[in-house]
Amino acid sequence: MERIGIGLAGLGTVGAGVYKHLIQNRVLISERVGLELAVRRIAVRNPDMVRTVHPPREIVTGRWEELIEDPAINILVELMGGIDTPYQFMMRALDAGKAVVTGNKALLAERGFEIFEKAADKGVPIFFEAAVAGGIPIIKSIREGFIGNHIESIHAILNGTSNYILSRMTEESMDFPEALREAQEQGYAEADPTLDVNGWDAAHKAIILASLAYGFWVGTSQIHVAGIDPITASDIRFADRLGYRIKLVATIRTNRDSLVEAHVHPTLVPKQHVLASVNGVFNALMVRGDIVGDTLFYGRGAGQDPTTSSVISDLAQAAIWYDSGGKAFGFTPHGLYGKCLPIERVSSGYYLRLSVVDEPGVLAQVASILGSHQIGISSVIQPEGHEGDAVPLVLIIHDAPFGKMWTAVQRIQSLACVKASPMLLWVLS
Amino acid sequence: MERIGIGLAGLGTVGAGVYKHLIQNRVLISERVGLELAVRRIAVRNPDMVRTVHPPREIVTGRWEELIEDPAINILVELMGGIDTPYQFMMRALDAGKAVVTGNKALLAERGFEIFEKAADKGVPIFFEAAVAGGIPIIKSIREGFIGNHIESIHAILNGTSNYILSRMTEESMDFPEALREAQEQGYAEADPTLDVNGWDAAHKAIILASLAYGFWVGTSQIHVAGIDPITASDIRFADRLGYRIKLVATIRTNRDSLVEAHVHPTLVPKQHVLASVNGVFNALMVRGDIVGDTLFYGRGAGQDPTTSSVISDLAQAAIWYDSGGKAFGFTPHGLYGKCLPIERVSSGYYLRLSVVDEPGVLAQVASILGSHQIGISSVIQPEGHEGDAVPLVLIIHDAPFGKMWTAVQRIQSLACVKASPMLLWVLS
Repeated sequence: MERIGIGLAGLGTVGAGVYKHLIQNRVLISERVGLELAVRRIAVRNPDMVRTVHPPREIVTGRWEELIEDPAINILVELMGGIDTPYQFMMRALDAGKAVVTGNKALLAERGFEIFEKAADKGVPIFFEAAVAGGIPIIKSIREGFIGNHIESIHAILNGTSNYILSRMTEESMDFPEALREAQEQGYAEADPTLDVNGWDAAHKAIILASLAYGFWVGTSQIHVAGIDPITASDIRFADRLGYRIKLVATIRTNRDSLVEAHVHPTLVPKQHVLASVNGVFNALMVRGDIVGDTLFYGRGAGQDPTTSSVISDLAQAAIWYDSGGKAFGFTPHGLYGKCLPIERVSSGYYLRLSVVDEPGVLAQVASILGSHQIGISSVIQPEGHEGDAVPLVLIIHDAPFGKMWTAVQRIQSLACVKASPMLLWVLS
Repeated sequence: MERIGIGLAGLGTVGAGVYKHLIQNRVLISERVGLELAVRRIAVRNPDMVRTVHPPREIVTGRWEELIEDPAINILVELMGGIDTPYQFMMRALDAGKAVVTGNKALLAERGFEIFEKAADKGVPIFFEAAVAGGIPIIKSIREGFIGNHIESIHAILNGTSNYILSRMTEESMDFPEALREAQEQGYAEADPTLDVNGWDAAHKAIILASLAYGFWVGTSQIHVAGIDPITASDIRFADRLGYRIKLVATIRTNRDSLVEAHVHPTLVPKQHVLASVNGVFNALMVRGDIVGDTLFYGRGAGQDPTTSSVISDLAQAAIWYDSGGKAFGFTPHGLYGKCLPIERVSSGYYLRLSVVDEPGVLAQVASILGSHQIGISSVIQPEGHEGDAVPLVLIIHDAPFGKMWTAVQRIQSLACVKASPMLLWVLS
């Protein structure tokens, strides 16, 4: 059986998982792929550090350049973390004609255009199943399984940490800081949880999904992103009363003019919608294709083992590509067409929570501003309970363009009867 | 761009969908595959029949042999239906070194061993995404996405017709014949619904999934199959009271000795289990891998469009295989190992509904027989309502080997106090 040489850059959580499982399931993998996947060299920052896996010392190096230079290495796996070094590593690897497997969502989202341009130029594939939704084979499913479909929409829960926090806030009526602390204690949130809770981890994944679905890279300045940190236990309670759960949802969708909308933010999901019951650290993606209709994918979105499963799947495909003399990978990652719909023009329903003085006429003032922008109200609740000298007023708003809604909210905020910053959330449509 | 010649055998519902969508999404598909998929010839039983799609008359033939003989045709699509003719067609195609795409689950389940032996012998791939779960890319996900995983279990709802019928029986307290009639009126059940309601359509799909997961063909005599036709509105009501929904579930699983259990039958699914909320004509599969953990796939399990989506995905992969000079398809469909665990030795919990005379001491007699086989009772309900001079008695039974349970039920059935045939159903574990 032919041996395919693998160079592994990074031996952190996922890198160690890949090394371990390639050995543990070696027989099965060789049988299924028809090739032997052999790790020939591993690059780490500190070769002498003690780790959970113990590769032979002589294959471990502190210089990632050695992996690219080694003629016995055919495929490179980038699991280093960060942006600049992995970028150099990938560009050099592609220049050398070596296929790359990566799980680096931030790198692809920020510099995917250059990386894939280089890859196309060199005729070398990049595999990145591990970058989105852990062990769920969503990249393969969209790129290959739905290859005949125009993708109409993707609605997805892509960040396990924030989903865990929102689930705990819902189950236990916790506020955000308490739920975050619990997530950190449980190991579901990192010491610095910024990218998880501010929505950017999910946004990076959404950018990658959009590039697959629509064939162009949505710029990081073109995607509208909001995090879960301002959500309160009250918002979750009010949403519940109105028939919704709050989830961090990534939306990628085309409208009739082939403009693509891309946005990630806390979203009110109707309780009967399938995404409403995705709890804890799980991820889920609803993909609608023009032929296949609605499909749903669900599984663990992160963690050593699920992510490892995806890296090994990519390694198998990269090995087959190499073994076929560089012909096998016929699925071109994207043509280059499509452009983004400015967020101001994206329509949605909304949840608007105001903190208002407790006196007659307040609703009339709010409704009058909304009405003057042709924005309709679908329901209003005035929950019990004072906040200082103010009371909450919660409105569900009919579909309206975000730009219009935003302008109206600015005007509402300037009313004398409105006490604190309004909370504006999207409702899933 | 290189043209890949396709020969389409069959222009029924799915065949027509494939022809239509290959034309409709032609630009997109060529861009993504990097090859042009051109239908060169179509074989049908009656070339002059009027259809929903209108290919040029000169490419339509009544002889399927012409598709195999035509040197301009590189890939064959088998959507004829039936067993014997498709079998001849596929074997001849493989002999001619042409890749085959099929959605014929019955053919693969019954003669997969010979077909795949021929394919391996000739080094030609067979693609069959359309054979299982409509548009859900489950074959690709298991074969490629989870290539590094030992598959621990698959629990799946694989027949949309029976799931629709059970859903309607649950929602409207209908009995089976009424729900079947409604499904036929809605176009969700065929005039002859035998294979759908007797479990064999799902069993064919389960056999295909088992071959992927465990690398050997489960014989049609080795899989335990029971249909939904004996289920009554009372069973659904009693199950509901006990916290369950009744679903037709296919189970494929290994136990610790690497023996594979394969069975398809109406099953009590706990209401909080994700499969319990899969309703209507939808399919769902829970796949557990040793690395990836639990994943769920959900979508429409049948119908022209979802199935077409899968055929086009397979066509793309077959085209890439052809274009790579027959090297690209490195995912070997299976090694040959594993064997079946006899159904008698498979352990499960059970639901047992008896029709008994309404007098004291009955439960004691039933419990005594179960006890003598070391079978434990987890709960008992005696619902209101007479059935002639008898009353229902419903037991939920702790895990026990099916063979033992079956023997006990035979003895219980012979009791004088037991009036009608017992209803024995599995409980999902």
